[in-house]
Amino acid sequence: MLSKAKIKHIQSLRLGKFRRLHNQFIAEGSTNVLDFLKSNLKTLEVFATAEWKQRFTKEVRGILVTEASTKELERISALKTAAEVLAVVEMPAAQEIVWSQLAGISLMLDDIKDPGNLGTIIRTADWFGISQLICSEETVDAYNPKVVQASMGSLARVEVHYKELEEILKEKPATLPVYGAVLNGISIREVEKPEKAIVLIGSEAHGISGKLLKYIDEKITIPASSGGGAESLNASIATAIICYEFSI
Amino acid sequence: MLSKAKIKHIQSLRLGKFRRLHNQFIAEGSTNVLDFLKSNLKTLEVFATAEWKQRFTKEVRGILVTEASTKELERISALKTAAEVLAVVEMPAAQEIVWSQLAGISLMLDDIKDPGNLGTIIRTADWFGISQLICSEETVDAYNPKVVQASMGSLARVEVHYKELEEILKEKPATLPVYGAVLNGISIREVEKPEKAIVLIGSEAHGISGKLLKYIDEKITIPASSGGGAESLNASIATAIICYEFSI
Repeated sequence: MLSKAKIKHIQSLRLGKFRRLHNQFIAEGSTNVLDFLKSNLKTLEVFATAEWKQRFTKEVRGILVTEASTKELERISALKTAAEVLAVVEMPAAQEIVWSQLAGISLMLDDIKDPGNLGTIIRTADWFGISQLICSEETVDAYNPKVVQASMGSLARVEVHYKELEEILKEKPATLPVYGAVLNGISIREVEKPEKAIVLIGSEAHGISGKLLKYIDEKITIPASSGGGAESLNASIATAIICYEFSI
Repeated sequence: MLSKAKIKHIQSLRLGKFRRLHNQFIAEGSTNVLDFLKSNLKTLEVFATAEWKQRFTKEVRGILVTEASTKELERISALKTAAEVLAVVEMPAAQEIVWSQLAGISLMLDDIKDPGNLGTIIRTADWFGISQLICSEETVDAYNPKVVQASMGSLARVEVHYKELEEILKEKPATLPVYGAVLNGISIREVEKPEKAIVLIGSEAHGISGKLLKYIDEKITIPASSGGGAESLNASIATAIICYEFSI
């Protein structure tokens, strides 16, 4: 049985200010929770159906697991459809970006606002072995339950930094090129792909902010087909195609 | 002013059964509405703020436009945040698939359930000049307001068919190869790309149905990076990367 205070606490973690206050976030669904249990992050508590608890006894060893009814899980869930398990996880401490350890491309997100897009970008980055995402401070919070959900466990593996992007672009090693995704750049099929690079992705509504444009070394574009009619691609789709092309 | 009956009618179009009953669906937002106005589909009525109406007088010529307050638009909108314009559009009649007119790839979707994914796939298909989508009957309705929203106007250009996929796969020309996206196929970087093909994409949760596997001529996979951790990619992301690779 979950106490009222516990339910209230977990519900409060739907909001960023309470996540920051308690330094905790929630992860829901079996894939997500199991990935966090395997990660370096600290899972503080798990709430699960009796079946889930029994099935994953080994995976949750050493962690407090509270059996919860479907009704209780519905109350604490931030999703439309509650999953069979929910975990409260400690937020990782903000880390410095270690440029020397960087391999491949680093994604830099300029004000991505849609939680589904950010979660999908985290999942895609993980697929392509991209270990760090640098987000502007206006980008949606990676620990928002909808982002965690869409990341499908990948948030347990990909480092997400929130920084003032202009500062980072000033600080980054001069040898590290910056590629910016725009609508009228060089085709990504043709552009030279360096071993290490920053790829800058703009927001869904406004693209890359004007103040960041001057830091771009190479403007890149995903070529539309001649018969194509769409004005643009979704931000997470564009990011994925670039990750694919640059990971050759 | 919108009458109560009108509001009720528009609200009813959020549900598939009323869309089919009235043969109508709603499109929201300026991009979407303007794209439908330019398309072959018949826009029946438009509801917009005074500003929008004045700005797009030319585009809506010949169509009944009712001025609506923000409050009224909120009542008729199916979205969390109402847009400045909403159109009621006539659903296009179900069409036969004309194989001989097919150019490039045709996407075949096996039970895509998430409206955001389907809308994004329609938008991506449009970008890559793919003019037809063949959806299984269990795929989410393309005229669901969330799909229309995510398609960003591309639904006005991409033909969406709902068919029993096994029948279609039996009927299609024998010379037209079927590529199926799976987790353990040939890398899409290496596979031969034909001029015309069907690309079959499975559902978010279950991949391609067992009964369809035997129709696949070539199983294809998006290669993960060696350091990658994610188990899979989001369905709309995988579709987009395949469209990109096959549109070379």
